[in-house]
Amino acid sequence: MLSRIDQSPLYRVANPRSIVFFGGSNKIESMGTNILMSLLGMGFDGPVFPVHPKEKTVQGLTAYASVLDLPVTPDLAVMVLPTASVNPTIEQCGRMGIRQVVVVSGGFKEVGGEGPTLEYEMVEICRRYGITLIGPNCLGVANPHHKLNTTFLPFEGRPGFIGLASQSGSFITQMFNYMARHHLGFSTAFSVGNSACIDIVDCLDYLGACPHTRVITLYIEGLTRGRAFVETARAISPQKPIVALYVGGSPAGRKAGSSHTGAMAGPDRLYDGIFRQAGIIRAANLTELFDFAWVLGTQPKPRSRGVVIQTHSGGPGAVAADAVGRTGLTLPDLSVQTLEALQPYVPHTGSVANPVDLTFSKNPMDFFAAIPKVLLEDNNVAMLMVYFLIPLPVIRRAMAQMGVAPERLESEAGQMVAEYARAFSQLHLQARKPVVGYTWRGLEERFVQLLMENGVPLFPEPERAARALAALVRYHEWRKVINADPVTG
Amino acid sequence: MLSRIDQSPLYRVANPRSIVFFGGSNKIESMGTNILMSLLGMGFDGPVFPVHPKEKTVQGLTAYASVLDLPVTPDLAVMVLPTASVNPTIEQCGRMGIRQVVVVSGGFKEVGGEGPTLEYEMVEICRRYGITLIGPNCLGVANPHHKLNTTFLPFEGRPGFIGLASQSGSFITQMFNYMARHHLGFSTAFSVGNSACIDIVDCLDYLGACPHTRVITLYIEGLTRGRAFVETARAISPQKPIVALYVGGSPAGRKAGSSHTGAMAGPDRLYDGIFRQAGIIRAANLTELFDFAWVLGTQPKPRSRGVVIQTHSGGPGAVAADAVGRTGLTLPDLSVQTLEALQPYVPHTGSVANPVDLTFSKNPMDFFAAIPKVLLEDNNVAMLMVYFLIPLPVIRRAMAQMGVAPERLESEAGQMVAEYARAFSQLHLQARKPVVGYTWRGLEERFVQLLMENGVPLFPEPERAARALAALVRYHEWRKVINADPVTG
Repeated sequence: MLSRIDQSPLYRVANPRSIVFFGGSNKIESMGTNILMSLLGMGFDGPVFPVHPKEKTVQGLTAYASVLDLPVTPDLAVMVLPTASVNPTIEQCGRMGIRQVVVVSGGFKEVGGEGPTLEYEMVEICRRYGITLIGPNCLGVANPHHKLNTTFLPFEGRPGFIGLASQSGSFITQMFNYMARHHLGFSTAFSVGNSACIDIVDCLDYLGACPHTRVITLYIEGLTRGRAFVETARAISPQKPIVALYVGGSPAGRKAGSSHTGAMAGPDRLYDGIFRQAGIIRAANLTELFDFAWVLGTQPKPRSRGVVIQTHSGGPGAVAADAVGRTGLTLPDLSVQTLEALQPYVPHTGSVANPVDLTFSKNPMDFFAAIPKVLLEDNNVAMLMVYFLIPLPVIRRAMAQMGVAPERLESEAGQMVAEYARAFSQLHLQARKPVVGYTWRGLEERFVQLLMENGVPLFPEPERAARALAALVRYHEWRKVINADPVTG
Repeated sequence: MLSRIDQSPLYRVANPRSIVFFGGSNKIESMGTNILMSLLGMGFDGPVFPVHPKEKTVQGLTAYASVLDLPVTPDLAVMVLPTASVNPTIEQCGRMGIRQVVVVSGGFKEVGGEGPTLEYEMVEICRRYGITLIGPNCLGVANPHHKLNTTFLPFEGRPGFIGLASQSGSFITQMFNYMARHHLGFSTAFSVGNSACIDIVDCLDYLGACPHTRVITLYIEGLTRGRAFVETARAISPQKPIVALYVGGSPAGRKAGSSHTGAMAGPDRLYDGIFRQAGIIRAANLTELFDFAWVLGTQPKPRSRGVVIQTHSGGPGAVAADAVGRTGLTLPDLSVQTLEALQPYVPHTGSVANPVDLTFSKNPMDFFAAIPKVLLEDNNVAMLMVYFLIPLPVIRRAMAQMGVAPERLESEAGQMVAEYARAFSQLHLQARKPVVGYTWRGLEERFVQLLMENGVPLFPEPERAARALAALVRYHEWRKVINADPVTG
C-alpha cells in the first residue's frame, strides 16, 4: 500500500501540470474535439497544447504540427488518433520525454486481427521509455479536484469522495449527470480500457492513497492479475471501503465484456471468493455500486444490525420492514424509555412497534426533529431509516385554505419544506448513527435535494436503502474481524 | 368472472352519482377535511353532501346536521369519523337506503382491545341493510375516469390502465405523483383496509370486468379467502394480467403487516404456490409491481425469449446483457440479413454481436430510427432494449460551436431531442414487438417524458427493464399453456 499519492505512477496522470492533445480539431463531430472541449470546458489550470497536422489554431489554442515542436515537455499526452497513428505518436512522445499517456483510440486487443499485435508493440514502446499508459480503448481520467476531464461528456456537478477504477469509460463520463443529481461526485475516476500497461490494480493503489477518496468503486469485466488484486485490495480495505461490480460472471455478461475490452472473465463463484478474501463488498449492479458507496462514504459505523423504521403510513412501513428483514438486518423493539418519550407524539391510530408508524403528526415538524431524535437516542437502535412522503400538494392546499395568496403559495410551501429538511439534516449530523431515507417522490424535488446536499442518502425505494445499510454493516463486521486478528490482519 | 362491471357490488362504490361525506369540516388540519378537499378538488361530477353537527357550510357546500336530513339518498357514504361514531352512522345510512359505504376511520381489528368487537358489529349492520362496505382503516377508492378520489392526497396525473386492489391506502394516494411522473395512471384503485366486508377478491372481480383496466396490481399483506382468490384470479388472468406484491412472507414483513391491517400472513412458499395456481406474476417489491404492470399493459406479446440490446457504449451494454441473461431471457445472434443491413450504420469500432454496440453514429438520428428498425425486423429478435444516453450537454456544445445563439441553445437542443423521441416512438408503435429503454439520466428530462408519453417504458437501470421483460414473457408463456389445455384452462 502506498503511503503517499505521489508515489504512484498515476500521480501525474491524474494531476498533470500540462497536457499535449492529439486528435482535437475544429470539427465538432469528431470524438477528439469533444474530449478536448470537455478538458477545456472544465477550466483545466495548466497549458494545453493541441497537435494538428494542418490547423494553426484548434479550439482557440495555438496548434503544433508535431509534438516535437512543443516549447516544453508536458506531463500528459492524450491521444484520440486513428489506430495506425497511435504507436508512432507514443514513440515520438517518449523521445520528447513525456512519461504519461492516455490512449483513447480503439482498434487494439478488443477487435482481433492485427489489434493484439499493435497492442503488444505499444507495451514495448512504453517499457522502452518508462511511459505510464492508460488504455487503449478508454476515456482516461476525471479528477474534478484538479479540474481534469479527458472524457467525452462535459463535467457536471462537484468534486466528491467516490474513487472509481472502471473497465468502462461510460461509467465515468455518463455518470457525471447521475452523480450530480444525487449530490455525489468522483474524487478521481480512471477508465482503464484494455489495460495494456496500467490496470485496475494500479488504480486501486492510487485511490487507496488518494486523500479525496473516502470509498473506492470498481467496475470489472475481468481481472488478469488476481493475486496482486487481492493483496492490494486487502491492504486498503480495512482503512477504506471498496465496492465492486463484476459483470463477467454470467454467460451473457461475459460475452458482452469480451467484445467490449477483450477482458477474460471467470465464473461468479471465483470472483465471490476473490472479493471475500480482499474485503471487497460486492454490488449486484451499477445502482448498488453507487448506493453502497454513498452510504459507506457518508455514514458512521453502526453499532449493531438493528434498524428502526420511521413512517407515517403503514404500507410503506411494511414493505420497508420486509426489505430490511430480507437483508439480514434486524428490527429491534424499542426500549421502555423510548416508548415513554414517544408517547406525546403518537396518536391512538399509530404504532410504536418497529416500524414506528405515526399515521399522522399534529405538528408536522415533529416527524423531522423530535421523533427521529428520540429514536436515535435508543440504545437498541443502531440505524434509522425514514420514509419521506413530502406532501407538497397538501401543504399548498393547507396554506391556500389559511389564506396565503396564490402567487406566494409555491415559495411559502418551499420554505416550509426547506425547514423540515434543515431540521432533519441537523439531527443527522449530530446523531453519529447511520441515517437513510426513502421516498417515491422525484429526486429532483427540493426537499430531497436539500437532504442529499446535507449528506443524507435518500433512495427511491426501501429495498435500495436496506441493501445499502446491509452493505455498511457487512463492511464494518468484516473490518472488526480483520482488525482483531493479528495473523490475517 | 363477471361479464359486466355493473354486476359487481363495487360498481356504485367506484362510480357513485352522489356522495354523503361525514367528517369533513372547515378545519384544514383534519383528515376528513383533507379527503373532502381531494374529492372536491378532482371535480367530482355529482352532488356532494357534507354532514356536520354544527357548521352550516363545509368547504363552501351546504352542510347537513344529519344524514336523515338529506334531500336525496346518495349512492355512497364516505366516513372519516371518530371510531365510536362509525357504527351508529352506518346504521343511519342503512335506514336512509344508502347501500355503499367507505369507512376511512381506524381503531377496529388492527388495534386490538374493543376493536374486533366493533368491527364484528359493523359487519352485522351491513348485512342487515345489504350495505357494500369498504374498510374500515382504509382510504377508499380512486377512479380517475369518474373523477372520484376519496383518498388523502390531491389527484395528480391522468386516468390510466392500471387497476389496483391494495391493503395499503398509501400505495394509492402516495403513488399518484409516482404514476404521473411515469405517464402512468390508475384505472380504478381500491384501498380495502381491514376488509371487514369487501376484500381483495371482490376488487379483483370488479377490475377483471373493468374496461379501463388493462392490467391488475395487488398489494397483499395477507389473504383470508384463499380458495376464492385463486378461482377468481385464475378466471381473469388468461384475459388480463395480474401482478401481486406480497410482503407477509418474511418475519419482518409479517409483523409489520399485522400491526397495519391485522392481516394474517403465511410463508413465502405458500403464497408462491397460490400465485402460480392463479396465473399471477409475483413482484418482489413495489417498484417491480408497477414496472411489470407498465410493460404488461403497454407491450405486445413477445414471440420468444430473445432480446436484442442496442447501445452506443460498451459498459452499459455489458451490464444490460448480464441483467438480461440473469432473468432467463436470451440474447440471440442476429440474422445474416440484419448484419448486412446494419453495415452502413456501424463504424469499425462498433460490434454487431448482441449487444449491438454502435460506439457512435455519424448521423445521430440513425440510433433512434434506422438502426432499431433493422433490429426489430430480425426474426431472431422478439424484444428490443435500448440504452438512451441523451447527451444534451454534447448537443448544446455542438450547436454552440455551429453558431447557434446562446439564448436559442436550450430550445433548439430541446427540439432536436424531441425529434429523436418522436422518431423512436413512431417506430415503437409500428413494431408490434416489445420495446423498452433504460437510462441513468433523470426521468424528468424531456426526451424521457416524451418516450413515456408515447408508451415506451423507460427504466432508470437495465435490471428493471430486463426483469419487466421477463415478467412479460412469463405471463405469455403461462397463458399459452393455459389456453392450449382444455382441462386446466
